[in-house]
Amino acid sequence: MSRFPHVRIGDDVRAQEQLLSEHCGIETLQLVVGGSMGAQQTYEWMVRFPGRVKRAAPIAGTAQNTPHDFLFTKALVEAITSDPGFKDGEYSSNADVVDGLKRHAGIWAVMGFSTEFWKQEVWRALEFDSKEAFMEGFLEPYFTAMDPNDLLCMAWKWQRGDVARHTGGDLAEALGRNEAVTRIVPINEDMFFPVRDHEYELELTPHATIRVIDDLLGHLALFGVAPTYIGQVDRYLQELLGEDV
Amino acid sequence: MSRFPHVRIGDDVRAQEQLLSEHCGIETLQLVVGGSMGAQQTYEWMVRFPGRVKRAAPIAGTAQNTPHDFLFTKALVEAITSDPGFKDGEYSSNADVVDGLKRHAGIWAVMGFSTEFWKQEVWRALEFDSKEAFMEGFLEPYFTAMDPNDLLCMAWKWQRGDVARHTGGDLAEALGRNEAVTRIVPINEDMFFPVRDHEYELELTPHATIRVIDDLLGHLALFGVAPTYIGQVDRYLQELLGEDV
Repeated sequence: MSRFPHVRIGDDVRAQEQLLSEHCGIETLQLVVGGSMGAQQTYEWMVRFPGRVKRAAPIAGTAQNTPHDFLFTKALVEAITSDPGFKDGEYSSNADVVDGLKRHAGIWAVMGFSTEFWKQEVWRALEFDSKEAFMEGFLEPYFTAMDPNDLLCMAWKWQRGDVARHTGGDLAEALGRNEAVTRIVPINEDMFFPVRDHEYELELTPHATIRVIDDLLGHLALFGVAPTYIGQVDRYLQELLGEDV
Repeated sequence: MSRFPHVRIGDDVRAQEQLLSEHCGIETLQLVVGGSMGAQQTYEWMVRFPGRVKRAAPIAGTAQNTPHDFLFTKALVEAITSDPGFKDGEYSSNADVVDGLKRHAGIWAVMGFSTEFWKQEVWRALEFDSKEAFMEGFLEPYFTAMDPNDLLCMAWKWQRGDVARHTGGDLAEALGRNEAVTRIVPINEDMFFPVRDHEYELELTPHATIRVIDDLLGHLALFGVAPTYIGQVDRYLQELLGEDV
């Protein structure tokens, strides 16, 4: 895996399109929806195949990765690659990189949830009795089970997500290609895909409106563990599916 | 330095008080003011020596460290201690820990400034021509010049700043001791001492009002490099110094 080539969000979407078109015979999509890097893919669909996407709902992710997001991801990458057990990607199992993966989880703890998630001890709802127990019982196992090279592939891709690659760097021109009726759906407590970054892209996207999810979990509301999260997503998607296109 | 004892914000303030009282003969302070851990010290003065502080202005720091802030600081600590050159604190110079100190700077880049600082490329005002050049020319030299054990001492102290230590954990009772006319001064773009954490403590602090500094730098507005920063601080402190006490 250390020699797996770099792939981009655009490669994902090109492959998805090929699968849908050649194997399933599907040419028109009633709805493209995804969260985080899935939102990056959604924007890629909107810009790359505008005539074929009827509705789109990018959730908690942007069309063009921001510099802050690049630096956040860089910190995540460095937590892994600095582990001596990483050995330039030639580790024998992810257990060799467990210290780096735990530090990676620790940075997610800071940026992935919100300040209020920790202050209000929302982890109690997940049946932990301390933030340390939540880290050891939830976030660390979640990330230490992952393959470090996989994570690095994803990080490289995430950092370079940018639909303006289609238009020589002109984001307005790229988003201007969108024909789908679109709901842009940020999460109000997201610390690294903040609402204002979505609002900025909203201004550039035809046929788009915004619906903000209220969730103290922040970006990791995407886990869907808050009882109120899925209801909000469902409501916004039903509203979107109810629109004539 | 690896065997330097743990000290607390309360130890700092006790030593400051001893210096002022025994060496300078100063018993009454017209104004106690400080930023970040200096704000923690300011709250400590307010609660520990209430009759002797006439005015107080904690800037971008809280009376009780938050769990999110604890986790942020933990990520900073781990960036340093995970460097093999750290050798459990027995390195021969901070140059041995330069990789860890750079990762530490990289986490500060994510949390110390704001998302808009990076998006609006505010570093251009500091005469850098890329975010990478800003990291290499400003934030990395700033932190790699520091002694790792010093940073860890500061981190330990920061994580445990809590005036409720005076009242068996009751923050309201502790802040209720304040007699100083107080301005609580958060920075609107601070990612780890957000305004709402200051508002929460404002509610518990007698004689206090809030004034919010507007600065895209976020917490590191405290560097004072934005031309508009010092003017705001001066205005709020002059206002405070003009009050009858």
